[in-house]
Amino acid sequence: MESRESVGNREQQGDPPLPTGHCPLPTRLVVQKYGGTSLGDAERVRRAARRVAETVEGGTRVVVVVSAMGQTTDALIALAHQVADEPDERELDHLVSTGEQVSASLLAMALLDLGRPAVSLTAGQAGIRTDRLFTRARITDIRADRIRRELERGVVAIVTGFQGVTEDEDVTTLGRGGSDTTAVALAAALGAERCEIYTDVEGIYTADPRLVPTACKLDRISYAEMLELAQLGARVMHPRAVELGEVYGVPILVRSSFSEASGTLIDRGAADERTDSVEVRKHVRGVVHDIDVAKIRIMGVPDRPGLAYAIFSPLAEAGISVDTIVQNASLDGKTDLSFTVARADRPRAVNLVEQLVPDIGAAGLDYADSLAKVSVVGTGMQSAPGYAARMFGALAAADINIDMITTSDIRITCLIDAARVEPALRSLHAAFELDQP
Amino acid sequence: MESRESVGNREQQGDPPLPTGHCPLPTRLVVQKYGGTSLGDAERVRRAARRVAETVEGGTRVVVVVSAMGQTTDALIALAHQVADEPDERELDHLVSTGEQVSASLLAMALLDLGRPAVSLTAGQAGIRTDRLFTRARITDIRADRIRRELERGVVAIVTGFQGVTEDEDVTTLGRGGSDTTAVALAAALGAERCEIYTDVEGIYTADPRLVPTACKLDRISYAEMLELAQLGARVMHPRAVELGEVYGVPILVRSSFSEASGTLIDRGAADERTDSVEVRKHVRGVVHDIDVAKIRIMGVPDRPGLAYAIFSPLAEAGISVDTIVQNASLDGKTDLSFTVARADRPRAVNLVEQLVPDIGAAGLDYADSLAKVSVVGTGMQSAPGYAARMFGALAAADINIDMITTSDIRITCLIDAARVEPALRSLHAAFELDQP
Repeated sequence: MESRESVGNREQQGDPPLPTGHCPLPTRLVVQKYGGTSLGDAERVRRAARRVAETVEGGTRVVVVVSAMGQTTDALIALAHQVADEPDERELDHLVSTGEQVSASLLAMALLDLGRPAVSLTAGQAGIRTDRLFTRARITDIRADRIRRELERGVVAIVTGFQGVTEDEDVTTLGRGGSDTTAVALAAALGAERCEIYTDVEGIYTADPRLVPTACKLDRISYAEMLELAQLGARVMHPRAVELGEVYGVPILVRSSFSEASGTLIDRGAADERTDSVEVRKHVRGVVHDIDVAKIRIMGVPDRPGLAYAIFSPLAEAGISVDTIVQNASLDGKTDLSFTVARADRPRAVNLVEQLVPDIGAAGLDYADSLAKVSVVGTGMQSAPGYAARMFGALAAADINIDMITTSDIRITCLIDAARVEPALRSLHAAFELDQP
Repeated sequence: MESRESVGNREQQGDPPLPTGHCPLPTRLVVQKYGGTSLGDAERVRRAARRVAETVEGGTRVVVVVSAMGQTTDALIALAHQVADEPDERELDHLVSTGEQVSASLLAMALLDLGRPAVSLTAGQAGIRTDRLFTRARITDIRADRIRRELERGVVAIVTGFQGVTEDEDVTTLGRGGSDTTAVALAAALGAERCEIYTDVEGIYTADPRLVPTACKLDRISYAEMLELAQLGARVMHPRAVELGEVYGVPILVRSSFSEASGTLIDRGAADERTDSVEVRKHVRGVVHDIDVAKIRIMGVPDRPGLAYAIFSPLAEAGISVDTIVQNASLDGKTDLSFTVARADRPRAVNLVEQLVPDIGAAGLDYADSLAKVSVVGTGMQSAPGYAARMFGALAAADINIDMITTSDIRITCLIDAARVEPALRSLHAAFELDQP
C-alpha cells in the first residue's frame, strides 16, 4: 500500500505515470457498483467512500460504477416533460446522464477527502461506446485506456453508470438496469476478479422477506437461477446484467452498502454443487412473485396456423410487452388463448384484441386485472420429479386456485389471485423446505 | 427558411450534411446567451426557446450559450461541501458543469418541441479548450467544427456556458463571469455579427434603478466605459467578457429576456460619437456604487522606497485583493497610506498589517468597515474640465463627506459613508444631467 500512498494528490503531481517498476501494484481488481439508494445523500456518499477506501487499503484496486442519487433521474425526466410534450430522446439522454455525473464527482471528492487518490470519469472519458439507440443504447465497445492508466497510478476510477457515448461523442443511456450493466461490462473488459453490486438489501433471498418472514438469504446462486428470479420479480438485479455476467463469466456479489453482511454470490454455481452432497442438495432456490399482471383470454379461437401471429403482431407494434402465453388445443378445433401483460397496458391491449376478434372468428374475450405470478426457481428441478406436484399441492393446501401454469427448465409459475400472494409464498416456502437456513 | 424546415428530425435523418448548394443558408449569425434567471424554471426555458425560434424564423442562424438554472450551481457547491471538507477542484468542476448541461438539454428539447432543429453540446462537444486551472480556467482554443456542421445543417447549437475541457477531456470551469465569456469567445471564433446577453434587466443604466428612480437605460456604451461600470459594481456583465469583446471587436447587446425592450449595445462607441453633436454629448455615462468596501489606514509611515512593497506583498500572499490605494506624501517625511479591501477580508488584512507596523516604523493603524464607493464614468471626461469639481460639489450639496478620492482616464471615484449611498447617487445623477432621457 505504501507505493500507492506516495501518489499523493493527483493534481499537484501532474499527470506523468509513476515508475511502476519499483513498487508492484496489487493485482487484484474489483468493480464496485453503488446504486441510487446507497448514494441517497451526502452521508451515504461518505459511507460508500469509506467502503471503497477500505477495499483499497486491503490491497485491491477498485473501479467504481455509480447510479444517480436517489430520485434524481425521475426528477430530471419530470422536468423534461415540463418543457416539451415529447422530449427528444437524444436530449433526454444528455439531460439524465448528469445525474450519474453528480454522484461520480461527489464520491471522488469524498474519497480524495479521505486521502485516497480518485478521479470521476464520464462515460466518454471512461471509453464506454454504444450504438445510437438513445434511451436504450447497447454497449458496443469499452476502450478502457484511461481507466487502466488511472489504476496503474493507484487512482480509484469512478465511472458514471447507465450511460455511454456514440462515435460522435453524443451521450446515450442504456435504459433499465443500465448501471448494473455498466458495472458487469467494465468488470469483463478489465478482467476484474468480480463485480460487487452494493444495494439496500443484503443479497438474494429465497422469497421476499417482507412477505415471508422465514425467507433466508442465499450465499450463492447460479446465473441461470438468478436470471429466472430477476425476470420474475426479484428487483435486486436487472436480468440484462446477469446475462452479461454469465456470457463473460464475471462473478457478481450482491450485498448491502449499509451492513457488513456477506451478500449473495452469483456465478456458474458448479463449485456449489460439488461441495454439497447430492442427497441434501436443494433443487428449489427461491420463490418469487410479481403482482403487476393482467390476463386477457380470447375464447373460441379456431385452431389454425397463423392465428398467433395475427393476434400478437399488432400488440408488438403497439409496444405492448406480452409475457406468459398459454394455449390449450381442444377437441372441437377451437381453443382458448390466454396471455398476460403489465396492468398499465391491459386497456390498450383489450382494445386492440377486441378489433381482432371478428376477423379471426373467435367467440369473444374477457380479462382480469388483479392477478399475480408466483414461481419456484431452481436448477435441476426438471430432472427431479415431483416438483410441480409439490407446488400445486402446497397451493391447494392453502386453498389457492391456480389460473394458469407455465414452466421452463428451471422454473414453475402459477398465475393466482393477487390478494392471495402472501399465503401462497409462505406455503410454497415451507413446502420446498426453504424455511430452514 | 423552407430549406431549414426540410431538415426535420435530426435523429431520423442520420448525420450526413445536407446538400447546401440548392438552398443557400442565411449568412447572419448571432450568439445568444441566456443567464440563470432567464432559465429559472420550465416556463422560462420555453420562453427562451420561443425567442430563439423567432430569431431563426427571422432568417438568422443562432448559437445559444446557457448558464445553469437559477440557484443550481450554489446548490451543487453546497452538496460538495457536505461530502468533503475541501472539495477537490477537478471534481468540483465536473460536478458544477452538470448545471449547464441540464439547461442546454432542456432548451434543446423545448426548441425541438417547437419544430426547430436543435442540439445541446457540452463544452467538449463544442470544442472549447482550456488550460488545466480548475475552477478558474482560461479558454485557449475553440475548435468549432461541430458547431459549424450543425449550423450548416440549419440546427441551432446550444452550448453549455462557463466551462471547457482540457486536452485530456477533463472538464474545467471558467470562474466568475464564465458564461458571458463563453458567449463572447464563441461569437469571436465563429465571426458572429454580435453577441446578445439575455438577462433579468433591460440593459445598462445610468445608475442602479432601485436606488435612483430617475435612472435611464443607455442605448449604447463603449467597451471602456462598460469595463469601468462593470468593475465598479454594475453586475449585469462581467468585466472579463467585456474585455474579450473589446479585444476581438464583438458587439455585445445586453437586453432582457422578459421584455421586447431594445437593450444596450456595447461596442467601440465611435458611431455613437459621430451621430451626436459635440455640444450636447454627455461625457458622463453613468453613476455606479459598491458597498462592499472596508478601509484600512496606516498612519505615520516613513516616506521611503520599498515600503509599499513591504506592506502589500504579505497581503497578496494571503490572497487578499487590495482595491483603491491612496498615499499623500507630507512635509515631515511621514505619510498616511490608506487602502480598501472587501469587508470579508478586513479582519485578516488588519491582523497582517498590525504585525508590520513596528517593522516599517509606522505610528499605527485604524480602519472603517461601513464605507462605499460612488463613481462617475464616461469617456472624454479627462479632456473636459470641471467634472471632478462638479462631482465634489454635488456631494457637498447633499452634505456627504468624502473620505478618499481616486481617478482614472474615464472615472472619478469617491469613498463615502455607506449609509449615504442613495442620496449621493441621486445627487450625482442629477448633477450630471443623467435624469433627462
